[in-house]
Amino acid sequence: MGQPAQVTVRPPQLKPSSKKRTRLWLLLIPLLCFLFISTPRLRLVGLGEETQHSSPASPEPAFPDLPRHCAAIPPISSAVFEARRNTLAKRLHQLGAAAYIAEPSSSAAYYFNVSDAHWRLSERPLLFVVTPSVSGANRGRDGMSDAGDISANVSILTPKFEATRAKLLPLSPSAYIQWAEEEDPFAVLFDALRLPSNSTVFIDGNARLFVADGLQRALPHGQVQNAPLQVVEIRERKTSEEINILKCANEATLLAIRATHKRMHIGMHESDARALVAWALAAVGLERAGCLTLFGENAALPHGSGTNRVLQKEDFALFDCTGQLHGYWSDVTRTFALPDSSIPDDHLAIWHHVHAAQSLARVATYPGALTNHPDIVARARLMLDGYGPYFTHRLGHGIGLDVHESPYLRGVPAAQATRIQTGHTFSDEPGVYIEGKVGVRLEDCMVVEQGAPYATFLTAGVGGAALSPWEP
Amino acid sequence: MGQPAQVTVRPPQLKPSSKKRTRLWLLLIPLLCFLFISTPRLRLVGLGEETQHSSPASPEPAFPDLPRHCAAIPPISSAVFEARRNTLAKRLHQLGAAAYIAEPSSSAAYYFNVSDAHWRLSERPLLFVVTPSVSGANRGRDGMSDAGDISANVSILTPKFEATRAKLLPLSPSAYIQWAEEEDPFAVLFDALRLPSNSTVFIDGNARLFVADGLQRALPHGQVQNAPLQVVEIRERKTSEEINILKCANEATLLAIRATHKRMHIGMHESDARALVAWALAAVGLERAGCLTLFGENAALPHGSGTNRVLQKEDFALFDCTGQLHGYWSDVTRTFALPDSSIPDDHLAIWHHVHAAQSLARVATYPGALTNHPDIVARARLMLDGYGPYFTHRLGHGIGLDVHESPYLRGVPAAQATRIQTGHTFSDEPGVYIEGKVGVRLEDCMVVEQGAPYATFLTAGVGGAALSPWEP
Repeated sequence: MGQPAQVTVRPPQLKPSSKKRTRLWLLLIPLLCFLFISTPRLRLVGLGEETQHSSPASPEPAFPDLPRHCAAIPPISSAVFEARRNTLAKRLHQLGAAAYIAEPSSSAAYYFNVSDAHWRLSERPLLFVVTPSVSGANRGRDGMSDAGDISANVSILTPKFEATRAKLLPLSPSAYIQWAEEEDPFAVLFDALRLPSNSTVFIDGNARLFVADGLQRALPHGQVQNAPLQVVEIRERKTSEEINILKCANEATLLAIRATHKRMHIGMHESDARALVAWALAAVGLERAGCLTLFGENAALPHGSGTNRVLQKEDFALFDCTGQLHGYWSDVTRTFALPDSSIPDDHLAIWHHVHAAQSLARVATYPGALTNHPDIVARARLMLDGYGPYFTHRLGHGIGLDVHESPYLRGVPAAQATRIQTGHTFSDEPGVYIEGKVGVRLEDCMVVEQGAPYATFLTAGVGGAALSPWEP
Repeated sequence: MGQPAQVTVRPPQLKPSSKKRTRLWLLLIPLLCFLFISTPRLRLVGLGEETQHSSPASPEPAFPDLPRHCAAIPPISSAVFEARRNTLAKRLHQLGAAAYIAEPSSSAAYYFNVSDAHWRLSERPLLFVVTPSVSGANRGRDGMSDAGDISANVSILTPKFEATRAKLLPLSPSAYIQWAEEEDPFAVLFDALRLPSNSTVFIDGNARLFVADGLQRALPHGQVQNAPLQVVEIRERKTSEEINILKCANEATLLAIRATHKRMHIGMHESDARALVAWALAAVGLERAGCLTLFGENAALPHGSGTNRVLQKEDFALFDCTGQLHGYWSDVTRTFALPDSSIPDDHLAIWHHVHAAQSLARVATYPGALTNHPDIVARARLMLDGYGPYFTHRLGHGIGLDVHESPYLRGVPAAQATRIQTGHTFSDEPGVYIEGKVGVRLEDCMVVEQGAPYATFLTAGVGGAALSPWEP
């Protein structure tokens, strides 16, 4: 059968051995090791245990200056999920669409509180469906109703033999539609939904092609299509609950980077710095956290080099860190020096140019501006400084339930850009990359809030942008 | 920026502390712990380290009866990858298609030796493209050539700022097509490929909808479509190199299950059994290995219960294990009893019914049979025994670079079934699941080889199917 749910493997409890020699060790050594293990600073230099994006056991004592930062921030409530689905239903009705369908994904996390961590994608489709339901009592004479009368009807299409597991998902749909192994799941879905044969159905853009293709075949006279911008933009504009979560996640990430900065020394390996910051991110309370850690010229490759360089006095260290709080992501990059560092003047100059570009871009991010505007402004600043060709990527991306999500801040022609709106959250991350020499990137995420003239950093609560190469 | 490549986190090397008390511990305790750790059986009962589908450090000594099983089996050679691409190019030419496009995926692993473990999917498309190239010298008078003159031309579409990293992929395409951040990647691709505007382009079915949709928009007069069966079936039929890898991976998995069986005892938790078998799978040399471990009535939920049951005398233990060798998967399930077990007679009867159904299904799997035939045969056997309603899933799935891949052995109407062919590899995994009571599944994968009257088990080299509930 295969493809079990992801599991965490713990060492097994073996049958107790009966040999006498073994028994002696069993008594003596665990006792001493318990002492060793319960002294956290010692444990850090100790065993070669490997973890992968998982929380190290009890790392908190290693960071007494780094308490859990977001304990008071609540997750999204079930009433909010219901309100989102009703907003979606109204939008579908306005657009004349009969249904919206998503696989387990960040869109399913947004509307149904179920992500692909809850239900792994397999070749057997499990689909979430919203159809707009029109309340009959308030229908007008023409059979049409205004958007206030529309609510969401939710169905889950599940493999029949996994229906018991599907019913454990944190969601109460009005129907579980079950497809047996010998049936076409998409035909079963449309039979149950009873949509008009010429319906338009929107699919989340991250769904797999064979799912969209199968749906289209099962609705040959209808239109099965990638959800349009009017649907995508519902998720793009964040509410105050979402912004509070995003702020705290980004603040916590910056605090973890700063705590790491204090503990670093010239001569460290990139991998050791990466492990250190991972412990800090766990201590501060983030989930699925991890960082790119790149020293010196390795930072000139924006997504990493694959080597494990030692930090030299002349090197900047670049940390690009992400972590999750209640499903929402942080994304913070700092490029910094240590107290003992001796950074070349031209590299310091680059740092200050990037810092200036980052500040300018934030001020250029305001409601009504085109999404290409902040990118153009930051790029113009670096071009004036002579570093234009070395700013090789877009200025930023939307951030929320995906680390990278629409809308994007990139220098497309105006006709392809959209408008910045309140509730949008973006990364602001200019960089200069000179291969073989140096890489500098500074990144804080920002939010466009009602009543503010331009965006504010999500990290503002803990001081926001870096102050200098020595003060991240 | 975020979304770094997946990294393995090791504990950091901190700045050495200067406190005297600490120094003493640093000397004494690691020495004693080294002794403790280097005694493997002791280590197993020791520290609470957590790993996730990763190889535990040096578990081999715990399984002296379980040497690395597949050390002599070579991976797929680069010449084979090239031959596969040429086969694909010929098929495209026959079907009148101008290109085949895949995202990093198992299909990309098949043709390009690059999977989504090499390059994580992000919102920035990285695409692999094969276009058929017709050798001019051998063209006929009409400009057409026979299939012998067709070879594959390979292009990689890469984000421009990640081109350096893309060039580290284990592949030498004839072109790296780079899209800048402000460009439409799909338009850039088609501009570079110079395909006729009315071309047909096939996309791998696991690609994401927004990729297929973007490609279609960039080729508005062409047809961008899910790759048809004639393309999919290239991957379905395995060569002798692939079958050798699949055999060894499945043998190794069964050996690990048997070694685990010997070390179990009544009173174990499911999680401890899962950890034990994970160590066995690592010892035997498999990668990304893991198992469902379900005791007693928990096994009645084919994909798991989420609880952590203790094994009782009356319980079967079900192990459903997968692991990788050179990218190819194993999938083996055993439901067994321990020497001290006291299994109810009706549960033993179910075991023997499932065992009989598994044997029958293998014999019903032969070249030319419809893919629904083995499912119908196994199901008929269990229906005669009165257990038809409790066999709730299909008989089996194809297996290769995906654990589950086409073709599937399921009881669809004949018109929807395809033909079993030599080179096909399937799981053969009937099961009976009575919720709240008992679950029994027996699974071996099988291969349809040239010259054999019906399929043989991939585990045959180590004895094949279980002999009895006590002999897995």
